[in-house]
Amino acid sequence: MTNSPIKAAVLTVSDRCSKGITTDTSGPSLCEMLRTKLGAEIVRTAILPDEQDQLAACFLDWCTPKPPALTLDLLLSTGGTGLAPRDVTPEAAARVIQRPHAGLMDLARLRCYAKTPRTFLSRGIAGTINQTLLITLPGSPRGATEMLEALLDILPHAIETLRGDVQDDGRPGASAATGRVINHRD
Amino acid sequence: MTNSPIKAAVLTVSDRCSKGITTDTSGPSLCEMLRTKLGAEIVRTAILPDEQDQLAACFLDWCTPKPPALTLDLLLSTGGTGLAPRDVTPEAAARVIQRPHAGLMDLARLRCYAKTPRTFLSRGIAGTINQTLLITLPGSPRGATEMLEALLDILPHAIETLRGDVQDDGRPGASAATGRVINHRD
Amino acid sequence: MTNSPIKAAVLTVSDRCSKGITTDTSGPSLCEMLRTKLGAEIVRTAILPDEQDQLAACFLDWCTPKPPALTLDLLLSTGGTGLAPRDVTPEAAARVIQRPHAGLMDLARLRCYAKTPRTFLSRGIAGTINQTLLITLPGSPRGATEMLEALLDILPHAIETLRGDVQDDGRPGASAATGRVINHRD
Repeated sequence: MTNSPIKAAVLTVSDRCSKGITTDTSGPSLCEMLRTKLGAEIVRTAILPDEQDQLAACFLDWCTPKPPALTLDLLLSTGGTGLAPRDVTPEAAARVIQRPHAGLMDLARLRCYAKTPRTFLSRGIAGTINQTLLITLPGSPRGATEMLEALLDILPHAIETLRGDVQDDGRPGASAATGRVINHRD
Repeated sequence: MTNSPIKAAVLTVSDRCSKGITTDTSGPSLCEMLRTKLGAEIVRTAILPDEQDQLAACFLDWCTPKPPALTLDLLLSTGGTGLAPRDVTPEAAARVIQRPHAGLMDLARLRCYAKTPRTFLSRGIAGTINQTLLITLPGSPRGATEMLEALLDILPHAIETLRGDVQDDGRPGASAATGRVINHRD
Repeated sequence: MTNSPIKAAVLTVSDRCSKGITTDTSGPSLCEMLRTKLGAEIVRTAILPDEQDQLAACFLDWCTPKPPALTLDLLLSTGGTGLAPRDVTPEAAARVIQRPHAGLMDLARLRCYAKTPRTFLSRGIAGTINQTLLITLPGSPRGATEMLEALLDILPHAIETLRGDVQDDGRPGASAATGRVINHRD
């Protein structure tokens, strides 16, 4: 099993934050939680408006390994997951996700439900793009951090599995056993 | 925040009801609940057979605003969500839904589970078509009304958000703040 | 209602088992549970590597009724549902599933959650292909059998409904009432 820190990126999705009308607090809150709770290294952040094409392009670009750059393990977005007319983050994500992961969002919502029944109003989805796990979180600082918190215990194992370091059942994975790099299949 | 009543429509999906062999009781039960519990105005009802093309066309037609007609806030269907060979309502809905909303059905099933574990046999889905929220409910009067009941507390907020009247976090939305009409993005 | 036994098949998905490096124990465990708990007849088993095209072709082939062969009621796969780089069983299934059934997996995960929170790491999906219900279970013997066990009470009713023998609400279905064969609509 590798012990290299989780490489994470956070994308804030908000028309108003992208124009400087409102200050983004959700993005920084997620970065702080990633650093302190998971020991993650934040390698990228950005703020984009609620524009589906721009969001899909950003997801794909950030999740495409470009040598010698490091491969991103985890990409969190915050915002654009609700029912407001311009909320299209899940649609942007669905266009570029290669392997959907409904269970992760189900777990997050289930765990947030007692505190916040409205967590089920979020349309956020999750899935993998190349070697990166993408999770689309709600836009409010509370909604975003509560959902991330609900996944903190499971994310390190998820990322180790995605890296090919372990099997789902905890046995050493092919890359750990052989030292070879596992190439993701498209 | 606008206080105009929710404009709702109910589509009954049933081969037998559409032929007059069986009397539709699910549709009228849903209308009654919408009126008494949400103060909704029922603007359309119909009964269609389990034909995927007809259902998709009806969903799209009802959810397309035609000036000067009123925009529909909520479209409920009842029937065709199970595993029976002719059940294809979710497939019809998936063809025309623009923004899927898995969380709404998850919440409904979770809340119905204690009373009715078979609620998980329903394949119903939800999502938006233009400015309308579509929810595909099961065909039995009990299954349909129990699922709607499970969503009564959350639907007014969902619809206000969809109208652009509020943000997900409860702040006034763009249309409320500026008085402008928010056009839904395709 | 027909009392003919459930016809089931089990596909093990594993690079290592397909090469004989590891002995498949999940497949036999599922067969045993299907026989003893559901009285099912196991009509096919196989082991395939984690190759998306091969898996999709197998799902479709097994679920295509070929006269005078028997129609399969239930197809379980085990393996390839996680986040490991070569896990692509849900993607293979999604390519050939005609009517998705998210609720079945939701119910299984919900019931497994108390014992095994990691059940939510499985990306498994379910749905129908022609007259067959396909469920993609995790690869570990424990994960696979726990999820199947969580569905044992609901599967007989699900399969009767899929056969057209009963309505979702328990009334006799069209085929039971008329004796006619119900053809599945594509």
